[in-house]
Amino acid sequence: MADGIKLAVVGATGAVGREMLKVLDERKFPVAEIIALAAPEEAGAKLQFRSETVTVEASSPDAFARADIALFAVDGDVSRKLAPIAKDNNCIVIDNSSAFRLDQDIPLVVPEVNPDDARRHKGLIANPNCSTTILVVAINPIHKAVGIDRAVVSTYQAVSGAGILGLEELSRHAREYFQGIDSVPAVFKHQIAFNLIPHIDVFVDEGYTKEEMKLVYETRKIMRAPDMKIAATTVRVPVFRSHSEAVNLDLKNPMTPAEARELLAGSPGIIVQDDPSRDIYPMPRFTSEKDEVYVGRIRRDISTDNGLAMWVVSDQIRKGAATNCIQIAELLLKENLLRA
Amino acid sequence: MADGIKLAVVGATGAVGREMLKVLDERKFPVAEIIALAAPEEAGAKLQFRSETVTVEASSPDAFARADIALFAVDGDVSRKLAPIAKDNNCIVIDNSSAFRLDQDIPLVVPEVNPDDARRHKGLIANPNCSTTILVVAINPIHKAVGIDRAVVSTYQAVSGAGILGLEELSRHAREYFQGIDSVPAVFKHQIAFNLIPHIDVFVDEGYTKEEMKLVYETRKIMRAPDMKIAATTVRVPVFRSHSEAVNLDLKNPMTPAEARELLAGSPGIIVQDDPSRDIYPMPRFTSEKDEVYVGRIRRDISTDNGLAMWVVSDQIRKGAATNCIQIAELLLKENLLRA
Repeated sequence: MADGIKLAVVGATGAVGREMLKVLDERKFPVAEIIALAAPEEAGAKLQFRSETVTVEASSPDAFARADIALFAVDGDVSRKLAPIAKDNNCIVIDNSSAFRLDQDIPLVVPEVNPDDARRHKGLIANPNCSTTILVVAINPIHKAVGIDRAVVSTYQAVSGAGILGLEELSRHAREYFQGIDSVPAVFKHQIAFNLIPHIDVFVDEGYTKEEMKLVYETRKIMRAPDMKIAATTVRVPVFRSHSEAVNLDLKNPMTPAEARELLAGSPGIIVQDDPSRDIYPMPRFTSEKDEVYVGRIRRDISTDNGLAMWVVSDQIRKGAATNCIQIAELLLKENLLRA
Repeated sequence: MADGIKLAVVGATGAVGREMLKVLDERKFPVAEIIALAAPEEAGAKLQFRSETVTVEASSPDAFARADIALFAVDGDVSRKLAPIAKDNNCIVIDNSSAFRLDQDIPLVVPEVNPDDARRHKGLIANPNCSTTILVVAINPIHKAVGIDRAVVSTYQAVSGAGILGLEELSRHAREYFQGIDSVPAVFKHQIAFNLIPHIDVFVDEGYTKEEMKLVYETRKIMRAPDMKIAATTVRVPVFRSHSEAVNLDLKNPMTPAEARELLAGSPGIIVQDDPSRDIYPMPRFTSEKDEVYVGRIRRDISTDNGLAMWVVSDQIRKGAATNCIQIAELLLKENLLRA
């Protein structure tokens, strides 16, 4: 361990997997070895990590046995299949899929919010859905200070949430628009360029999407706020990689916008960008490839007695996925939590 | 009058002015003569109306004297200067600017909502801001049925709200993105392609924009709901011409989503597009050049006891501006209200 961590990245060729390699480098994570894993048909592909070229391998018990930690950046089905194999081979799993997030025995962790939960892990820690992570970083300090009774959230979600294919589809649809070609949607249900699609993940109960219900259930679990009332509308927008959220909070006790601004500016993982007089507020185009959650447009919610409204933006691939997973790994390392 | 109305269009060369000519044609408005007016430097320009070519004239007292009704599609400053001249020349003004909207003596009219107010006009009727018109068409039937206590609205507003130059800027910025050129914003404060700008119109009190406060004040006036609590976040999105709105309503008395769906489907000016099981919901790309307000994603607001959430989309240039003005003119004509 003195020479660093042997780290497997499962789904290393995807948008989040590739970003993990970048973020590990940027954050100077003590890597002894990168084990890049993907589906068998991608074995042999080459990836860059720092100055090394890493050859992608098919996931296997042996590969997990060589690793201390595996960062999973794959679909829920793949996670459900591979996570037990990793665990059986003494490899701690940090899983970015939705497979285990709501399992009572599995911690769902955003290090700025509930590091405590990571301390009780049994070999697997779940990483929240991107829009949830971004939300809880921004609102948890307010909840701890005065209590949040209700949150109404409308999201403006980037195509990177659908991976590399999502990024490519926006790019292709936008080019086709200018060529006068009627775009055929593949990743998304409809054309995404110059359009909005109020539909992310599948529809579940009461006309809500699973994406909307993730915001409800995951937020309550991470913030330990089982009674918080939350309603969301999640919308795919033609933006490449940062998610934005319009958030209206009903508070249990009053907090002024100035107090919120000061509190958030001093809270971990947040950059307050809030000076309307100089046209300064968070925007997705300018928060890409950043690790923090940007908060602005902080103001009184004028439709309620004790309320705040705000505008929250953060890179979906970074804090929404790769960065948060790596921050969890950093926490395990720092607190010597590398054995279940 | 038997031969139709002499109709001046002020700002005829702009995005809304040009659309007015199209909508007048489509709706078979009984036009005896089109008098196309614009700034002096645009005089002489040619526009098409039905099979005629119309030559643009500079606005003048004489031009207004020849018209029965003038549709104003110009900025507030120009409206403030020219509307009194039109009125002095016995020409009824339907004004799309913000200049007169909150004037107590001037009706602010959406024909589906408050046709009564048009009946007390004194020669000038104001047309609401685009995002307001779209909102009130969708929520007024619910307010009349069960009462709305509070509305939280997050908008996704098309660039057409900034006129032809806004449309051109999105197009240019998107092309420049693919050429690797750093776009220089002119109409918007920042790059708009593949970005979101949470800033429309100027900032006024308490960190709200004027666009956000228009939604509050204009909605209350049109719906005669002075006590309705409203908070808005208005955001410019890279979409060409339809505005979308995520709306969360706290109701005074309960209404189920099924009841709301039925009520709205039977209300004027609304098309309910709400079948998630078949991926059917309103989207801006597919509501362009339509006159109606499209409503979908109608569901219970699960963060409150008596609440509804919905997703509302409508063409900003059409129902948000040109169509509503022409519907007001149709109302004046039908009810013989052509003299103040």
